[in-house]
Amino acid sequence: MIMDGSFQSPSSNKSELEEGRAFTPRFDQAGLIPAIVSDAAGGGVLMFAYMNAEALHRTIESGEAHFWSRSRNALWRKGETSGNRLLVQELLTDCDQDVIWVKARLSGEAACHTGRPSCFYRRIRGEGEGAILEIIVNGEHP
Amino acid sequence: MIMDGSFQSPSSNKSELEEGRAFTPRFDQAGLIPAIVSDAAGGGVLMFAYMNAEALHRTIESGEAHFWSRSRNALWRKGETSGNRLLVQELLTDCDQDVIWVKARLSGEAACHTGRPSCFYRRIRGEGEGAILEIIVNGEHP
Repeated sequence: MIMDGSFQSPSSNKSELEEGRAFTPRFDQAGLIPAIVSDAAGGGVLMFAYMNAEALHRTIESGEAHFWSRSRNALWRKGETSGNRLLVQELLTDCDQDVIWVKARLSGEAACHTGRPSCFYRRIRGEGEGAILEIIVNGEHP
Repeated sequence: MIMDGSFQSPSSNKSELEEGRAFTPRFDQAGLIPAIVSDAAGGGVLMFAYMNAEALHRTIESGEAHFWSRSRNALWRKGETSGNRLLVQELLTDCDQDVIWVKARLSGEAACHTGRPSCFYRRIRGEGEGAILEIIVNGEHP
């Protein structure tokens, strides 16, 4: 197992990057890649976080989502304290390989630290010159 | 209409930020906020990009997704050249208001510049110590 987080360097050839079969994730200057987590069953977005190379490797190898916590500056296996683990059903990347999409099954009831299934529990609604948030009530959320 | 992109400053009170109705998006140091775009009908993730305050304002006010292109360093209305516009059905933010989720209807056939409906057309599959990409064939994608 590679745990040091080494991946092949991204190709500078756009066609290889976009059409190829080599997985060469493009981490940002801080060594992170954004990761979208959606519910493999319901389809809705559960949460959004960042992975460093090690978190991405561990996610691929273990089948459980790992992230890099920017606030704690530490590798973080989702659910290691809450118990709400994310069991990976499918992992995808985008055309230029700088985003990860994790389709997962939630082992517990809450992906969000607030105790809600999803972190996205508020709708943005334009109002006059600004915008307000509306809390989405149970059952209304996809 | 506010087009200069001013939003209220985020509260330093965690409870207000997480439970409140004030929309106070948290842009990063570059003035950007990540935006996940999913298909309002099918549920799958179509693309991922960034918005600056002006792009977010225009998205809220016009009902069409706008982004900030980091490569071109310019405001970008999705579809302005391709014709593949993203008509916003619902806009959400996450618990700490530093991500936007756009549920949209695609006016054309391709959200991806490669001509595919979604930018996420490749699955990551662990293989030995590394990982490879598999192109998802038509119809197999959710």
